[in-house]
Amino acid sequence: MRRWTIGVDFGGTNIKVGLVRDDGRVAQTAVLAARTFGRPTAFVAGVSGLIEELARSLGIRPSQLRGVGVGAPGLVDGARGMIHTLVNVPGWREVPLGARLARRLRCRCVVDNDVNCVALGEWRFGAGRKARALVCLTLGTGVGGGLVLDGRLYRGAAGSGGELGHMVIDPHGPRCACGSRGCLEAHVGASAILRMARRALRRGAQPLRRLLRQAGGRLTPEVVAQAAGAGDVTARRIWVAVGRDLGIGVANVVNALNPDRVVIGGGVANAWALFAPTMMRTIRAQAMTVPVRAVRVVHARLGDHAGILGAAVLVWESRGGARR
Amino acid sequence: MRRWTIGVDFGGTNIKVGLVRDDGRVAQTAVLAARTFGRPTAFVAGVSGLIEELARSLGIRPSQLRGVGVGAPGLVDGARGMIHTLVNVPGWREVPLGARLARRLRCRCVVDNDVNCVALGEWRFGAGRKARALVCLTLGTGVGGGLVLDGRLYRGAAGSGGELGHMVIDPHGPRCACGSRGCLEAHVGASAILRMARRALRRGAQPLRRLLRQAGGRLTPEVVAQAAGAGDVTARRIWVAVGRDLGIGVANVVNALNPDRVVIGGGVANAWALFAPTMMRTIRAQAMTVPVRAVRVVHARLGDHAGILGAAVLVWESRGGARR
Repeated sequence: MRRWTIGVDFGGTNIKVGLVRDDGRVAQTAVLAARTFGRPTAFVAGVSGLIEELARSLGIRPSQLRGVGVGAPGLVDGARGMIHTLVNVPGWREVPLGARLARRLRCRCVVDNDVNCVALGEWRFGAGRKARALVCLTLGTGVGGGLVLDGRLYRGAAGSGGELGHMVIDPHGPRCACGSRGCLEAHVGASAILRMARRALRRGAQPLRRLLRQAGGRLTPEVVAQAAGAGDVTARRIWVAVGRDLGIGVANVVNALNPDRVVIGGGVANAWALFAPTMMRTIRAQAMTVPVRAVRVVHARLGDHAGILGAAVLVWESRGGARR
Repeated sequence: MRRWTIGVDFGGTNIKVGLVRDDGRVAQTAVLAARTFGRPTAFVAGVSGLIEELARSLGIRPSQLRGVGVGAPGLVDGARGMIHTLVNVPGWREVPLGARLARRLRCRCVVDNDVNCVALGEWRFGAGRKARALVCLTLGTGVGGGLVLDGRLYRGAAGSGGELGHMVIDPHGPRCACGSRGCLEAHVGASAILRMARRALRRGAQPLRRLLRQAGGRLTPEVVAQAAGAGDVTARRIWVAVGRDLGIGVANVVNALNPDRVVIGGGVANAWALFAPTMMRTIRAQAMTVPVRAVRVVHARLGDHAGILGAAVLVWESRGGARR
């Protein structure tokens, strides 16, 4: 009999629900709008209903699933399935989501930070396979981190272990959304890239200006990447700066944790070819010989399904989690 | 029957050998000069001879010991008992010390980085007791680090996991001995303190000057601490700078690893009262709310015997290690 697991990727815009096979194939997905289903009660009702639908389509009850895993964007105590707070999704403060889903669905429900799930997914099926000490970074609006050490997700004392985005890489650097100054996120997150791009636009940056018009005036890291690809010098410089600052952050983590693999994912990382050479050079210059020799720094491989798949792996790897 | 373990604290000046009881009491110690016994062959002969003496004094054979643990100042692959290189001790390059000692003594011999041993010792018997995620920092000529995560020493992929001294806290900061710029060690290590003190002396710093004369002209972090205690304003400022920079480093580790305990030891940490208030303030300002609430930052408690005791705990906690 084939067994299934449900992975839920709770994002600021979409809530993606996927049916995952034991071989890591995502067989079916469905999406709910976070605007409608983002608050706790609506989330539990909407996601449970969708899972019941998916189970019905397989001719089984939710209780016959291996379990449901949820990756949520914020501070989660994975050991207890408790969401402390979420970033960019209102209404979540000390919500025992694991227990609430488990009560409704009568199956094992595990919840953790979304990047922790991505780290687990990449470790099990993606660019982090067979790593003994895996560091995962995701570059998007925020910069997230996750650690899989000695074959286990590392959570820390209160669930915030692996939050690498708020490592200060330059105490004189730009102000961060967290209130601190010079965090990795403040240097290489999407808003940092857009801030640099707006400055470039004020100074000229013709190809960027043209591509921005073509994109309907909506400035995104992707437009900045396209402009760099089209030869815009200032746009290229932005990615060199991203590579250097990311390299400083990665070198720090390489020195401190001596990982054998660093996996970098998230939307901003799609500009890999534009920032990776500078990043690699900085890491080699800044990290110590022994750990730098032991590590491979690679682009994430799971793409769009990383969140769903990671949430399913979370179910398989968790001993705890709320049970029915 | 009482069982004994030998702990060896291999320092740049002294090699301390101690007999450790199962309750963590160091019953007897002996010291060899590193100048004479620091090279591999002399080390194995000298330390083995001393251990045989100590065992004879108990009326037992070395083979009846629980084992011998060695903490060495440098890069060690603890899983294999292999010393890659040592800092400030010449002649050590890819030396399988664990195997060589085990062959000679016919008992279990385990080797690891000295700060890893201190971290284990503090976790088992000192200021890190019962911590789930312990970060240990030692402040001396170098700044060392060790991590005990989820009840196990974290070694990383090649044994350099936990080397927190070369975390860059300011890319524009002073040059570090490692070749990089702005490492934690370059800001708060003994040579950084002496560099600041020499600058202060050029500008006046009367109490410091007087204490330096009393100390026979030998400038040490201890003299700088005494001067600060005696009201020397520039000396006080040095410790405030140390507290701030150490706070930045600790905040980074707190954000990244969410430990419940940070233990700070080493000779420089004896000036605790002079730098801790600024350090604590910086940590609270810089680290995120959740991890900062979960952590206690404390002064190490084991003092002079930390290295010996930690090396003994290493024996108890290691499953591997070279066996006879």
